[in-house]
Amino acid sequence: MRSVAVIGIGKTAFGAFPDRDLRSLAVEAITHALNDANVSPPAVQAFYLGNFAGPSFVGQNHLAPYIGSAAGFETIPCTRVEDACASSGSAFFHGWQSVAAGIYDIVVVGGVEKMTSQTTPRVTEILAGAGDMSGEGRAGATFPALFAMIAQRHMYQYGTTREQLAAVAVKNHANGAKNPQAHMRKVITLEQALAGRPISEPLTVYDCSLISDGAAAAVLVPLDQASRYTSRHVRVLSVAQTSDHVALDTKADITCFPAVESAGQKAYEHAGLGPRDIEVAELHDCFTIAEIVASEDLGFVEKGKGGPFAAEGCSAITGPLPINTSGGLKSKGHPVGATGVGQICDITMQLRGDAGERQVRHHRIGLAQNLGGSGATCVVTILAAA
Amino acid sequence: MRSVAVIGIGKTAFGAFPDRDLRSLAVEAITHALNDANVSPPAVQAFYLGNFAGPSFVGQNHLAPYIGSAAGFETIPCTRVEDACASSGSAFFHGWQSVAAGIYDIVVVGGVEKMTSQTTPRVTEILAGAGDMSGEGRAGATFPALFAMIAQRHMYQYGTTREQLAAVAVKNHANGAKNPQAHMRKVITLEQALAGRPISEPLTVYDCSLISDGAAAAVLVPLDQASRYTSRHVRVLSVAQTSDHVALDTKADITCFPAVESAGQKAYEHAGLGPRDIEVAELHDCFTIAEIVASEDLGFVEKGKGGPFAAEGCSAITGPLPINTSGGLKSKGHPVGATGVGQICDITMQLRGDAGERQVRHHRIGLAQNLGGSGATCVVTILAAA
Repeated sequence: MRSVAVIGIGKTAFGAFPDRDLRSLAVEAITHALNDANVSPPAVQAFYLGNFAGPSFVGQNHLAPYIGSAAGFETIPCTRVEDACASSGSAFFHGWQSVAAGIYDIVVVGGVEKMTSQTTPRVTEILAGAGDMSGEGRAGATFPALFAMIAQRHMYQYGTTREQLAAVAVKNHANGAKNPQAHMRKVITLEQALAGRPISEPLTVYDCSLISDGAAAAVLVPLDQASRYTSRHVRVLSVAQTSDHVALDTKADITCFPAVESAGQKAYEHAGLGPRDIEVAELHDCFTIAEIVASEDLGFVEKGKGGPFAAEGCSAITGPLPINTSGGLKSKGHPVGATGVGQICDITMQLRGDAGERQVRHHRIGLAQNLGGSGATCVVTILAAA
Repeated sequence: MRSVAVIGIGKTAFGAFPDRDLRSLAVEAITHALNDANVSPPAVQAFYLGNFAGPSFVGQNHLAPYIGSAAGFETIPCTRVEDACASSGSAFFHGWQSVAAGIYDIVVVGGVEKMTSQTTPRVTEILAGAGDMSGEGRAGATFPALFAMIAQRHMYQYGTTREQLAAVAVKNHANGAKNPQAHMRKVITLEQALAGRPISEPLTVYDCSLISDGAAAAVLVPLDQASRYTSRHVRVLSVAQTSDHVALDTKADITCFPAVESAGQKAYEHAGLGPRDIEVAELHDCFTIAEIVASEDLGFVEKGKGGPFAAEGCSAITGPLPINTSGGLKSKGHPVGATGVGQICDITMQLRGDAGERQVRHHRIGLAQNLGGSGATCVVTILAAA
C-alpha cells in the first residue's frame, strides 16, 4: 500500500441555507478543495460522495454523477456511498484505499447533506432510518431516545453526571463560536446547558447536535506525488472502517461501541501509534454522550472516565487533548453526509496551523472519528502534518 | 492488478413478495452465494451492497451493516453503494477493484430492492429521483417519458419501428418464461406487445420493465485462490464504471449513451477483446429501446441497426449473439438495486453451463451492462468461463 496525502480541502459554511440547493453546496466545497490542491476537474480519476438521505430530504437520488458532472469531472467513476452519519467517512475510507492500493493517482472525496428544508419531526423520522426500523423505529425510539438510553446507562454504570454531559456542550459551543464556518456561533454557560429544553431524559436540546445544510471535500494523491501540487499537504497515516449490528438492543453493553473500539485499534495499528500520540481530535458528538463514549472507546481515557475528562477541561483547546476544536456536530453543525469529510478538513486545518484562534499548540498528529447510527458503522482516520 | 474470480452466486426469485422484507431477501441471496462458494460468513473481508432507494421504498437506511450483520459478517467494512439502477453494478466494480488491487482476498457484493410495497405512482416518483429533479422531475418527465423521447428520436433518426421495439419485448418474455426465477413468466406475441396499454408514446406497457422485489449476490476472490474454494468459478476479465450528466437535455444526441460507449471501450480494452468476442450478454433493458441502444453503444451492431438486429432474431437464445437470456429487466424483473449483480449471476450461470433450457451454445465469454438513470452511470463487466 502506498502512503497517501490530502493535498486540498474545501468546506461550505454549515448552517440553514434556504436559498441553496444540495448540488450547489457540494460543488462549492469540491471547487474549494480543487483550488486548494491546484488540481483541475478533468484531472480527477474517481469521485466518492458521502450522502445519507438526499432522496428523502430533497427528492434527488443518483447524486454522485449529478454532482460530479456539475463539478467538471469527465466520464470517471462517480459513486455515492451511504453509511448513515458515517457516509462521507466511509467515502474517505474508499477514496484513500483506492489511492493507497495504486488504483488511482487523483481522487476527490466529498460529502453533502441538505436537511433544513424539512420539518424537525420529518428530519427525525428520516434520521431514524439509520437505526433498525423494524424494531427501534417501530417502537418510536428515534436517535435522541437511543442516545438518552446510552447516557442513562453510562450514568448508572460509571457515575457520569448531567453536568459532565453539559460540559461537553459548553466546550463545543465555545469552540464553535470561534469558527466562522460554524452553524451556531453561540457561547453557552453550564447553567444554560443544564436548563435546556428537555429532549429525552437526561438529554436537553443542548446535548443534541444540529440539523444543518453543508458540504465538504478533500483531494487525495499518493504521498510521493503531493509536492507536485502543493507544499501544504498532510499525510494520511491510516483509515479504518468497521461495522456492527444496527439495533442497539443487540449490544451486550450499550456504554461502548465495539465498532469504534475496533476501528480505533486498526487505525492505531496501521499508523504505528497509540491513543497517547494523538494531539487533536474531532469526535462524532451527535450527542454529548457520544463524545464521552468515543473518548473512552478510542483509549484517550479509561472506560467510564470520559465525563470527568471533559468536565475537567482536558479536551478544551488549551487542554492536553483538544477535542472538537471546530465546535463539533454540536455547534459547527451536522449536515449528516458532510460530517465525516468535514472532520477531516478540520483536522487538516489544525495540522497545517490554519485554525486561527482555535489553533492548538501541538499539531503534528490528529484523529477524526465518524459514527454511523448507534454504532453500526465507524470510520477512524489518523492524519499527520507533512 | 490481480485477476479476479467469481466463486459463488446467489439470487432470490424476482417478483412481488408482500410477506418478505428487504433484509431477508438480501440475506437469502448472500447465503446462497456463500454456500455456492464454500465460504463461511466470518471469512468475508468486505461487503459492498448496491441499493437504490431502500429509505424511500421501505423507510430503512444504513443498509450495509443492517444486512451484513444479519448475514454473519463480523466487524468488516460494510458499504452501501448507490448509483441509481446501476447501484449493484457499481458495487461489483468496487468489490472487483478491491480484490484486483490486493486490498482483500474475499469480498461479497450484493444488491437488493423491495419496491412492491409502494403504489406504482409512488414507485415512479421515487425512480424519477435517478433523473434531474430540478429539471426533468419538475417538468413531470418520469423515466417512461424520457425513454419514450429516446425511442421517438431513434425512430426518426434511424427508422427504428414500433415492431422492432416490440420484438425485444417478445424475445425477453419468451426467455423469462423459461426462467424459474423470473417475475413474469408469460410468453407474448408481437400483436400483444403492439396492442399493450400505452404508457408514453411510442412505449406500451410491454416496452417497460417490471417493478419487483429481489436480491442477488456474488463472492469474489483472487483468481489464483479460486480453486481452494470451488472448481466452478468464472473469471472476471474486466469491469468498467463511467459517468455522464444526469439530465437528458444536456446530451448532444439522445440516441446514444456516451457512458455506455466509454464503459464498453474500457472493458473491452482491459479484457483485450472486442464486441465480436462476446458470446452472450445481459443488457439493461429498463425499456425495450434501451436494449436496442445498448446493443449499438457496445458495438454489437452498427449505430441505428439495433432494431433490425432484434427483429431478425439475432439476439434470441438461438441467434448469433443471445441477449437477455434471463428474460431481462423486462420479464425477469427489475428490483433496481439487485439488477447489476443479478445480471452477473445470470452470465455466470451461462458460462458455467447451468442455464438449463435457456443455455446458449457458445458460452466462453459473456458481458453484463448495467445502466443508471438515462445514462449518467454505466457499468460493463466481461466474464469468462474458467
